[in-house]
Amino acid sequence: MEKKSFASDNYSGVHPKIMEALIECNVGHAKAYGEDRYTKKAIEKFKQIFGQEIYVDFLYNGTGANTVALDAMTESFQSVICPEQAHINTYEVGAPTKFTGCPMIGIKASDTGGKLKVERVRDYLKISTGSMHHSQPRVISITQPTEVGSVYTLKEIEEIADFAHENGLLLHMDGARIFNAAESLGVGLKEMTKDLGVDVLSFGGTKNGMMFGEAVVFFNTKLAENFTHRKKQCTQLNSKMRYITAQFTALLEDGLGFKNAKQSNNMAKLLAESVSDIPGVEMTNEVEANTVYAILPKEIIPDLQEKYFFYVWDIVRSEVRWVTSFDITEEDVMDFAEQIRSTLEKIKKAA
Amino acid sequence: MEKKSFASDNYSGVHPKIMEALIECNVGHAKAYGEDRYTKKAIEKFKQIFGQEIYVDFLYNGTGANTVALDAMTESFQSVICPEQAHINTYEVGAPTKFTGCPMIGIKASDTGGKLKVERVRDYLKISTGSMHHSQPRVISITQPTEVGSVYTLKEIEEIADFAHENGLLLHMDGARIFNAAESLGVGLKEMTKDLGVDVLSFGGTKNGMMFGEAVVFFNTKLAENFTHRKKQCTQLNSKMRYITAQFTALLEDGLGFKNAKQSNNMAKLLAESVSDIPGVEMTNEVEANTVYAILPKEIIPDLQEKYFFYVWDIVRSEVRWVTSFDITEEDVMDFAEQIRSTLEKIKKAA
Amino acid sequence: MEKKSFASDNYSGVHPKIMEALIECNVGHAKAYGEDRYTKKAIEKFKQIFGQEIYVDFLYNGTGANTVALDAMTESFQSVICPEQAHINTYEVGAPTKFTGCPMIGIKASDTGGKLKVERVRDYLKISTGSMHHSQPRVISITQPTEVGSVYTLKEIEEIADFAHENGLLLHMDGARIFNAAESLGVGLKEMTKDLGVDVLSFGGTKNGMMFGEAVVFFNTKLAENFTHRKKQCTQLNSKMRYITAQFTALLEDGLGFKNAKQSNNMAKLLAESVSDIPGVEMTNEVEANTVYAILPKEIIPDLQEKYFFYVWDIVRSEVRWVTSFDITEEDVMDFAEQIRSTLEKIKKAA
Amino acid sequence: MEKKSFASDNYSGVHPKIMEALIECNVGHAKAYGEDRYTKKAIEKFKQIFGQEIYVDFLYNGTGANTVALDAMTESFQSVICPEQAHINTYEVGAPTKFTGCPMIGIKASDTGGKLKVERVRDYLKISTGSMHHSQPRVISITQPTEVGSVYTLKEIEEIADFAHENGLLLHMDGARIFNAAESLGVGLKEMTKDLGVDVLSFGGTKNGMMFGEAVVFFNTKLAENFTHRKKQCTQLNSKMRYITAQFTALLEDGLGFKNAKQSNNMAKLLAESVSDIPGVEMTNEVEANTVYAILPKEIIPDLQEKYFFYVWDIVRSEVRWVTSFDITEEDVMDFAEQIRSTLEKIKKAA
Repeated sequence: MEKKSFASDNYSGVHPKIMEALIECNVGHAKAYGEDRYTKKAIEKFKQIFGQEIYVDFLYNGTGANTVALDAMTESFQSVICPEQAHINTYEVGAPTKFTGCPMIGIKASDTGGKLKVERVRDYLKISTGSMHHSQPRVISITQPTEVGSVYTLKEIEEIADFAHENGLLLHMDGARIFNAAESLGVGLKEMTKDLGVDVLSFGGTKNGMMFGEAVVFFNTKLAENFTHRKKQCTQLNSKMRYITAQFTALLEDGLGFKNAKQSNNMAKLLAESVSDIPGVEMTNEVEANTVYAILPKEIIPDLQEKYFFYVWDIVRSEVRWVTSFDITEEDVMDFAEQIRSTLEKIKKAA
Repeated sequence: MEKKSFASDNYSGVHPKIMEALIECNVGHAKAYGEDRYTKKAIEKFKQIFGQEIYVDFLYNGTGANTVALDAMTESFQSVICPEQAHINTYEVGAPTKFTGCPMIGIKASDTGGKLKVERVRDYLKISTGSMHHSQPRVISITQPTEVGSVYTLKEIEEIADFAHENGLLLHMDGARIFNAAESLGVGLKEMTKDLGVDVLSFGGTKNGMMFGEAVVFFNTKLAENFTHRKKQCTQLNSKMRYITAQFTALLEDGLGFKNAKQSNNMAKLLAESVSDIPGVEMTNEVEANTVYAILPKEIIPDLQEKYFFYVWDIVRSEVRWVTSFDITEEDVMDFAEQIRSTLEKIKKAA
Repeated sequence: MEKKSFASDNYSGVHPKIMEALIECNVGHAKAYGEDRYTKKAIEKFKQIFGQEIYVDFLYNGTGANTVALDAMTESFQSVICPEQAHINTYEVGAPTKFTGCPMIGIKASDTGGKLKVERVRDYLKISTGSMHHSQPRVISITQPTEVGSVYTLKEIEEIADFAHENGLLLHMDGARIFNAAESLGVGLKEMTKDLGVDVLSFGGTKNGMMFGEAVVFFNTKLAENFTHRKKQCTQLNSKMRYITAQFTALLEDGLGFKNAKQSNNMAKLLAESVSDIPGVEMTNEVEANTVYAILPKEIIPDLQEKYFFYVWDIVRSEVRWVTSFDITEEDVMDFAEQIRSTLEKIKKAA
Repeated sequence: MEKKSFASDNYSGVHPKIMEALIECNVGHAKAYGEDRYTKKAIEKFKQIFGQEIYVDFLYNGTGANTVALDAMTESFQSVICPEQAHINTYEVGAPTKFTGCPMIGIKASDTGGKLKVERVRDYLKISTGSMHHSQPRVISITQPTEVGSVYTLKEIEEIADFAHENGLLLHMDGARIFNAAESLGVGLKEMTKDLGVDVLSFGGTKNGMMFGEAVVFFNTKLAENFTHRKKQCTQLNSKMRYITAQFTALLEDGLGFKNAKQSNNMAKLLAESVSDIPGVEMTNEVEANTVYAILPKEIIPDLQEKYFFYVWDIVRSEVRWVTSFDITEEDVMDFAEQIRSTLEKIKKAA
């Protein structure tokens, strides 16, 4: 059997129910490019959640979803404002920048728990909006949960949405782990997005138990025009579309998305609790979703990674990041915590 | 049970052996982005076929494979020469053009069975190479089999490769249906590509029984540098990579790719034979791979499409295109031929 | 003194009246980027010609004017339809393609005197409009006069404009030599553009006696929104703008643009007349503007180029192109014709 | 007579000697696109300054020079590191980003006098170089003098160049006001660039008395390959090239560039001295080139702008920026200082 890890939620596999859905839809022929009945059903599922007046479409991955979504919201002389650490700004090799032509304007958020602060955006608008020489701000993009695992409250999102609209901007939400955020807040998906004024949502599937596939949901449906052509030009049009959409239907059925998120969120909390009292382990974030940050003695990291792989987040501070996937169990967490404890003790003795 | 169709090989589903491979690899955690053992194994399979000195990488779809491959071969002030009907020129909403910045130069091939003729490329080089005002030719791209179902002979490919290299150009092959071509010629994959001087190959999986996934194979490995970054910037980096590469391993094992191609090629031939003597049906291509073109009376098309869906290729001439997938059986072909025959007779009687 | 040439109208210098305007405006400081009084005055001149409801802006060169104009008319998943030989398709190293992301769709015009034929565009629309896989046609672009020196009649332009608008397309006119076309037709600038339905016009200055500078005129002013930002992002925003706009004011004053065009058009006609009866010279176009094409014996070309430089257009046919600039005089033409005659005779004797 | 201003050095006109050069070269025909004798001469001038082993080329403006220079140094999956306030990052509507596909990585420099600090670049390299998900750092770009008027010392430039090369990066210098920097340091142009390891230099002309035109100088000449095609694709190829290059020859002759810079630098110093003791005026920068920053009472700004236009730099702090052009005289400065003094006094009395 393969080991589990605390490296990332894309190290985990496909949830059994989703694999089942893939097997079930593998029957006969289906129209390509999304004109099949599986896709129709997935669209229906999304409309049940978000209301009939949405436009939803399906892509391969999160970088693609963000890139095509932003392309639909911008022209190339405009800009996208986001926290400095935003995935679109930092972790996508400039994909949104190259495809849209727009710079991503990274606003400092290292001191605000990774969250975008409206006042800082206002300052940036002052120097850029209307200037002949500046890319014109058009979109605010926030990630929910953020790249450092914090979760915007409904009030915070609403404040950003209102600010955006008052200033002629649009609001994009990167929801690569959207279920984790909603589960953490104890709210519904619509309550956390459409109801607050989000214009376009990147809706993650891969990190929550799917094999591949993400959705883009337009609440501001005027922006969705020509989305298929944008998607194709961005190499994101899947031909055998049923194999993405059948997965989404399964994820949205019987609350599977929420169940997976609950498991991974709970395991993150449990992990934090289980290691926070170990001498030598210093927790560095409030665990709000499925990510745990901690500072560990440098020496024990390689050994631990052998047992359960994970990434060093900040090599200077010896800070590590643990992500709990939907398939992480209490047993896994307990064993991992035990490994940390015993490795630390071993070292202490040796010293 | 779902109906089959003669519409396209992306209407068909996933071959059972490939689905099995997907289920089998769905165990525990695996490193993301291609650093897993399934990917290692798939790379080994490719090296067994093409030799150790290749670079191979994996992407979501054919448009992505072509786009990133061409990006690795060009700079934006250059151009890509291809037959007018080439997929990269016509059917990809300009994806390669937008991402590379290079125009695709479509050379007339409607009168050459869809094949690129060296003399015509030579004429184009005369007016463009060295000119300060023209995009500088850098790549010749051919599709094997072509977009109209013809198959380049080894000699034809070699001639194009030699011409390309003599003129400082690189040769790209779009092999979305590469097994169909090799099976049709009765040659191996390496014999038809690397051995003839192809520099970079887009290697299709989706149309031959995979769920999703294509490969790019560099025989000219200098060009492969930084491919991961190019791939990511083009939104084509798959996180849970094992689910592409486990499929490829299955496709390359026990000759599955060739078996599938043989079946679809044979069924295309059988279909052509079975309908060519039906009065009112006029065959319009030599069947060399898995595509059959025929002119049918306009009136019978909608009825037939109800039974087995297919596309009208040229509405003016009432020419249709039939594509046979790997899962099409003799029974399917016979039934379809029978439908054509009887529908035609019904109409004749009515007239 | 420097020799004159028949190479191109960008070999000629700056008209004395325009040089005067440059000297005159070189006084004190002026607001940068077009907010100066010289620019205001030039805009007024354009409005006197085309009416108050236009938007006009100024750029460095023709490639810039075409590129930014097309950027204002398209999104990257769309396409621009033009004759195969169009400057935007062939002579601009793909600048419009790279900046807009749109392919230029070159329609065959080698057999139609370089002019775009509506029927051929209609055929192209049939296979592309609405298709999920094709770039969506958005703009028709014609060059007036064409790249081979022919001039569209008013009726021809109107037909193309009507066709464009009936099909949801926009009409762009590349008017790098716009005065030559209008002078040739004996009509006004507005009569040949706005009145016929042209949406956006690239308005040439450099080839008609200016030092540098082109304008873009929007008759469809909705498209002009954000033009300054587009222009800047395309590196085409001139800081010391008065030095472009003072030139345009001079060109538009006292009919200077038309006078220059009349001179160059007349000299082209005179040249054609003067050489057409020389044995060994075969004229290959109807001279409608300031370009003359002829087939000459290969042997005499290098000698002639020494005396008056010009370009070989088609090396295979030994066809040359002669362009007459605004500063070419009857004396120049007569001398050139004499050189051709005597060089030919010398060769005949030698043979 | 037109008023002068302290707004920007692109508000000033063309230096008389440069206008003379333009008039002188306006004789007869000259080969287009840079194959003329004026261009040859300008290239020779550059080689006299920088040595024979350089490649130099000419473009319209600074945004163009920076954009094409960076295009020659990068591939789109890479990035350009620069101070946050860099022109390329902030004032060019994303032109370099769109054309190269590379994000500009703005490093904080608001607390370092606008200068790039090597340690901060090192920190950024640590998190990005080698990461599969980050654009790969390839170029460091510095502006000399910086956007806030400070001047890097030779030692500072050398340190950055060494750091760049040790880390596999290239060094670009944006020298829009290069003469001002060299004059300020009392060094030659080569001493401040090539001798220290600069790879590519954007060489400004427009802000120092030219009508239009900038150069790009490659010291790392391998990067210059295909520069003409890059330039053309970026819409920066000037057809009547002599009118840029004749200006450059004049600027480089008899030390004109340095004379102009000396005048503007001296006038900036004089201005700072003349106003620094006025009660109510607070100087906010060390004047090292031709830019002066000061905080003024908000109320007096509109009145002053009427007399000599200038820009408010930071509306919150009521900080203004004064730029002295080559044509500003002692008289102008004295009069301006007097206006400031008297306006302030008037207000004081009124209060």
